[in-house]
Amino acid sequence: MSAAAVARRREARLDVLVLERGSYTSYSSCGIPYLIAGTVDGPDVLIARSPDEFRRAGIDVRTLSEVTEIDIGARTLTYRDHNARADRREGFDQLVYATGAVAVAPPVPGAELVEPVRTVDAAERLLARLERSDKRRAVVIGAGYLGLEMAEALTLRGLKVTLVDRDAQVMPPLDADMAAHVQAAAENACIRVLLSTDVQEIAADGGGRPCAVATSAGELPADQVVVSTGTRPATELAAAAGLPLGATGGLRVDDHQRCLGCDGIYAAGDCAESRHRLLPDPVNVQLGTHANKQGRVAGTNASGGDAAFPGLIGTAVSRICRYEVARTGLSEKEAVAAALPVVTATIKDSTRAAYYPGAGPIWVKIVAHAETGRLLGGQIVGVEGAAKRIDVLATAIWSELAAGELELVDLGYAPPFSGVYDPLLIAARQTANRVGGAASP
Amino acid sequence: MSAAAVARRREARLDVLVLERGSYTSYSSCGIPYLIAGTVDGPDVLIARSPDEFRRAGIDVRTLSEVTEIDIGARTLTYRDHNARADRREGFDQLVYATGAVAVAPPVPGAELVEPVRTVDAAERLLARLERSDKRRAVVIGAGYLGLEMAEALTLRGLKVTLVDRDAQVMPPLDADMAAHVQAAAENACIRVLLSTDVQEIAADGGGRPCAVATSAGELPADQVVVSTGTRPATELAAAAGLPLGATGGLRVDDHQRCLGCDGIYAAGDCAESRHRLLPDPVNVQLGTHANKQGRVAGTNASGGDAAFPGLIGTAVSRICRYEVARTGLSEKEAVAAALPVVTATIKDSTRAAYYPGAGPIWVKIVAHAETGRLLGGQIVGVEGAAKRIDVLATAIWSELAAGELELVDLGYAPPFSGVYDPLLIAARQTANRVGGAASP
Repeated sequence: MSAAAVARRREARLDVLVLERGSYTSYSSCGIPYLIAGTVDGPDVLIARSPDEFRRAGIDVRTLSEVTEIDIGARTLTYRDHNARADRREGFDQLVYATGAVAVAPPVPGAELVEPVRTVDAAERLLARLERSDKRRAVVIGAGYLGLEMAEALTLRGLKVTLVDRDAQVMPPLDADMAAHVQAAAENACIRVLLSTDVQEIAADGGGRPCAVATSAGELPADQVVVSTGTRPATELAAAAGLPLGATGGLRVDDHQRCLGCDGIYAAGDCAESRHRLLPDPVNVQLGTHANKQGRVAGTNASGGDAAFPGLIGTAVSRICRYEVARTGLSEKEAVAAALPVVTATIKDSTRAAYYPGAGPIWVKIVAHAETGRLLGGQIVGVEGAAKRIDVLATAIWSELAAGELELVDLGYAPPFSGVYDPLLIAARQTANRVGGAASP
Repeated sequence: MSAAAVARRREARLDVLVLERGSYTSYSSCGIPYLIAGTVDGPDVLIARSPDEFRRAGIDVRTLSEVTEIDIGARTLTYRDHNARADRREGFDQLVYATGAVAVAPPVPGAELVEPVRTVDAAERLLARLERSDKRRAVVIGAGYLGLEMAEALTLRGLKVTLVDRDAQVMPPLDADMAAHVQAAAENACIRVLLSTDVQEIAADGGGRPCAVATSAGELPADQVVVSTGTRPATELAAAAGLPLGATGGLRVDDHQRCLGCDGIYAAGDCAESRHRLLPDPVNVQLGTHANKQGRVAGTNASGGDAAFPGLIGTAVSRICRYEVARTGLSEKEAVAAALPVVTATIKDSTRAAYYPGAGPIWVKIVAHAETGRLLGGQIVGVEGAAKRIDVLATAIWSELAAGELELVDLGYAPPFSGVYDPLLIAARQTANRVGGAASP
């Protein structure tokens, strides 16, 4: 929708057509766990702009319209109009492919019993099931950030939740030492966390509804099962149309979001690859912020403009139970996997001056190049006020600062916000002290 | 104390002597308004390290010891030992001059009746007066950030507060449009704000205590008067010793905190000038964060090391009533005064996704060079979560990014922290759109 909106604004003479399989446009899928939790009230608030609003802006939005085939050579596509139960065909001059991602189910018997909660429609169905049932045990499979958010949401709804993951830590984008704080927060919120645990089967009751999860740690009775075991780019149509896919499974694009070798065909968002500014190979990162920016770039270029997506560095924030969690750049394990020599420092400090009301713990981990000191990544866990500090590290990494340069940047200080030295500066100093045997005051 | 501590740690063979006029060391003077407000409990929590703690670390700290003369040529100084009521003399090889700043009283009759509340001792005396008195009217003279903090503190203590300033806006480091939001917050907290109002006299009762403030807007009865009309570097001793002073009134230093032309003599903190990375001339900025960093630099160099202070860009944050307030770099009026061609953009957005509980207003103003787009400054006012976003702008300005570059930096997004586009990115985009006629998507 951001591509369509930009194209519409830029070029009044264009016909802009949007085909959407579902019934909503431009809603915050990141808000779905809060809908489940009851933190936000009803799905309407998650909708940024309705199909009718886009139509009033001059965009021909057709919902419940599922594209089934794209013919790149003929510049035509076929779609199923679920309203009219008819197949239709449209031509195009420029195409923006923005199909997002689809859930990957765990490869176990019974996985097909569980609908992934990735859309407002699916969230409403889960909420209806929760309201119909007076049973109170839930199992969430997958301890990534969405799994953690869903576990918290169900806990807030009064369910007794077990979170299962085959990995040895929660939140795999974090290093294990930082993820341990997030796990502790989840456990403090009464979520049972079972790690290094394989799911073997999702068992059904007589009515075909999930009733238990068999795992390597025993059987877990479950009145509700939520699966959050990852996603993959939705590229079936693209592959069938011959558009190029990369090793990540996403569509290969250049910095103008052009599908490689395909004139006039763009891809943006969760279905596409992105350049990572710290890594040689493209990545597939599924986040609304990149999707939105890439959509703007694609919409600009598809309407005769010239815009480039400058890449990403993997910044992400979330709030898990009592803690805010953030990361940017490369984790230590990612940097090691990329064969980069690294130094790291991890500090524990306070989100405000220690004496100021509301002060609480913040952990900051910084990863830097062992020889040059150049900042490579950072991770933050802590109470209110912790997470968005990651944006400072993101800006510093983006600007190619070294840890020793960040150490003395003029960040704000007042007791409601930090000690005299911001936690980031303390972590940067300790990191700088470990670079190439450098000595710092 | 940061100079002493660093020198001590670096070089075990040094004798490190600290002479302090007062009875405390290393306390948070920024915390004094919170002490008055009752937000923090007692002065002890403001003390980072006591004289005894420093002594145990091997630093010879002498409190109530007021230096009265420095002989640079002879490498000696004289101080008054207020404990023993005796004058004493000491020699030195290296001297770090760190006397801070002193309050500047308003140039009106009766100003001498009011003790500035700049030390823990003075704060305790004000608290004692508040407890002795059942009268409830206060006048605060000076609507800078400290005056606003003191006005809020007295309001929280139950006093009816009038805040007076001769300027037409509160918080002069902000542009007037942004300061208006801070004024509104103060007024919403029941502080009466009288601007463009000259103070003419502070009148005393029969006992010589302030009882009213005569102003160009009439007489204001006052059971308590607090003066916060600025400070100046405390340089009497330095001037008498022949150390060089700059146009700001602060001590002139190089990037190693060496007093210009004076081998082995260093100055750091509120009494010294600093390099401003965006301005040609030195500035005198009085903030604990620079004082601490400069102290480390001075202590490193005075103990045989080699460290440099990289300059500052004027970052400051505070919390005034319901709003957090922040600035960095140059304000629009500062940039204009420096003859820089500028563009600005000011946006109003939400501190969290609009639907997420606790979301509230945030205003962001960005100042950029009109031709190059290079970021020159930023100001932020808003509810919880607003102010420390200034550190992102500070890091971007420090790294010499243009507004159009900041617009696409990979900042974190999740509904508890922002909309899909962080308010900074929206403000950066609008700023970039105004640079040199550039068109952005």
